[in-house]
Amino acid sequence: MEWLQKIDSDYWLIEQDRGNLTVSYRLKEIIFSEKSTFQHVMIADSYDFGRMLVLDGVVQTTALDGHIYNEMITHVPLFIHKNPEKVLIIGGGDCGAAKEVTKHVSVKDIHMVEIDELVVNACRKHLQEVSGNLSDPRVSFIFTDGIEFVKKTEQTYDVIIVDSSDPEGPAEQLFEFEFYQHLKRKLKDDGILVCQSQSPLFQANITRNTFNNFQELFAHADVYYAVVPTYPGGFWSFTIGSKSPINISCESLVDVNTKYFNKDMMVSSFKLPQFLAKKIIY
Amino acid sequence: MEWLQKIDSDYWLIEQDRGNLTVSYRLKEIIFSEKSTFQHVMIADSYDFGRMLVLDGVVQTTALDGHIYNEMITHVPLFIHKNPEKVLIIGGGDCGAAKEVTKHVSVKDIHMVEIDELVVNACRKHLQEVSGNLSDPRVSFIFTDGIEFVKKTEQTYDVIIVDSSDPEGPAEQLFEFEFYQHLKRKLKDDGILVCQSQSPLFQANITRNTFNNFQELFAHADVYYAVVPTYPGGFWSFTIGSKSPINISCESLVDVNTKYFNKDMMVSSFKLPQFLAKKIIY
Repeated sequence: MEWLQKIDSDYWLIEQDRGNLTVSYRLKEIIFSEKSTFQHVMIADSYDFGRMLVLDGVVQTTALDGHIYNEMITHVPLFIHKNPEKVLIIGGGDCGAAKEVTKHVSVKDIHMVEIDELVVNACRKHLQEVSGNLSDPRVSFIFTDGIEFVKKTEQTYDVIIVDSSDPEGPAEQLFEFEFYQHLKRKLKDDGILVCQSQSPLFQANITRNTFNNFQELFAHADVYYAVVPTYPGGFWSFTIGSKSPINISCESLVDVNTKYFNKDMMVSSFKLPQFLAKKIIY
Repeated sequence: MEWLQKIDSDYWLIEQDRGNLTVSYRLKEIIFSEKSTFQHVMIADSYDFGRMLVLDGVVQTTALDGHIYNEMITHVPLFIHKNPEKVLIIGGGDCGAAKEVTKHVSVKDIHMVEIDELVVNACRKHLQEVSGNLSDPRVSFIFTDGIEFVKKTEQTYDVIIVDSSDPEGPAEQLFEFEFYQHLKRKLKDDGILVCQSQSPLFQANITRNTFNNFQELFAHADVYYAVVPTYPGGFWSFTIGSKSPINISCESLVDVNTKYFNKDMMVSSFKLPQFLAKKIIY
């Protein structure tokens, strides 16, 4: 594992996924380290970010700020929908998105389709700051390929959440028009689709393509963002699509226990800085 | 310079200011490198962030996102004031804040008090993406200690902007109650003071202390934020204080040429995520 180095008495995780910028984290302890069929899975305890999930040497989520991403990819579409009962999550192996969805009392079924069972098991056991140990009986774990599942299932959903990793390797297809077409068919008439759509700063083409695809497919599409310190540049985007109008207001909000999401964020996360608005929307 | 390393044929800037996280930038070229009385001053061209100002091995601002910080520390207080004529900037050696202030036609005088002339000269010549070469006749450069200047001057201002570096070494005093007391005396009755108040994530105590100090000194105080990718964690906070009510609206906005700031940001930058609101305001 070339991304792990011992300097003096400490292990350092050295993220090498990007050629021109290297971020190195000093680790207190490696909690879990195992190879699955798909990738190397590590849970480590770091000094600045607490425990973190690391896949193939790249930090995916941390105890410090995993809640930001997970709260924003879930509560925004769930509160826009107003009465979500059946929710599909594609990906989301850290279980944080599913944990947030369980906070909605209207929700009766959560289908979580994740390809890598080892990620789910490791996070439920060793990354409870993010996963919350997730043992709600409304959650069904389905360990299979998300694209195959969506093609075959006859279920339809109120909210579909695509919580994918970066669009490289197998996750690449989760960013393609064809996949969104399949997802649209699995939405009920007032259903809402939301996808994480990468950094609008460093991968603006992906954010823009996702938004363009959603605009073509749905009567209503929009982009919102959250500030996730662990991700390069901080800015992180989400794209949302719906056959019915997307009414962004905080009127339907009931109290959920959150650390980032609140009434203000529900509205202001759709207000993009000038250069992002220009890059993506115009 | 231990922060500069040659790996294969490339120079890398290795930021070592924090013990548990290291960020390394691959450089295309070192444009300028000289020691002043106060610090080592470097302008380098990096792959991911373009040209950057580096003081004692720590990145201060970059061509990629310098505008975000500089637009937000200036246009927010200037538009809240509505008719600013006389503006004082303490620090701001990269000249980006002064450049933004010159975009306001109401402004007649800009006093920029910076301790290190070498920083200003280097940025005006080699970092024009941030400084814009700044040659507006309304700008007076005063190369002296900001605290001494404020104690002695008999001038009063409509808007005072404290654009300091991190609160270590000489800049530490720029975060103290006594300094804010001096600044308050130099404000006109409807004057506005704004300070950069660090990362509310990694230095929440500084953000909170600054806000508490402002609350004690001013009838009206508030905190707003911007997302600056270059700074650790992305979140960056600004604290604002005024003897008159702070009316945050976009009604008084006229067109300024900006890349981050816009009508939406004027309002939504004051809407804090739940955990920051709790840490700072409550």
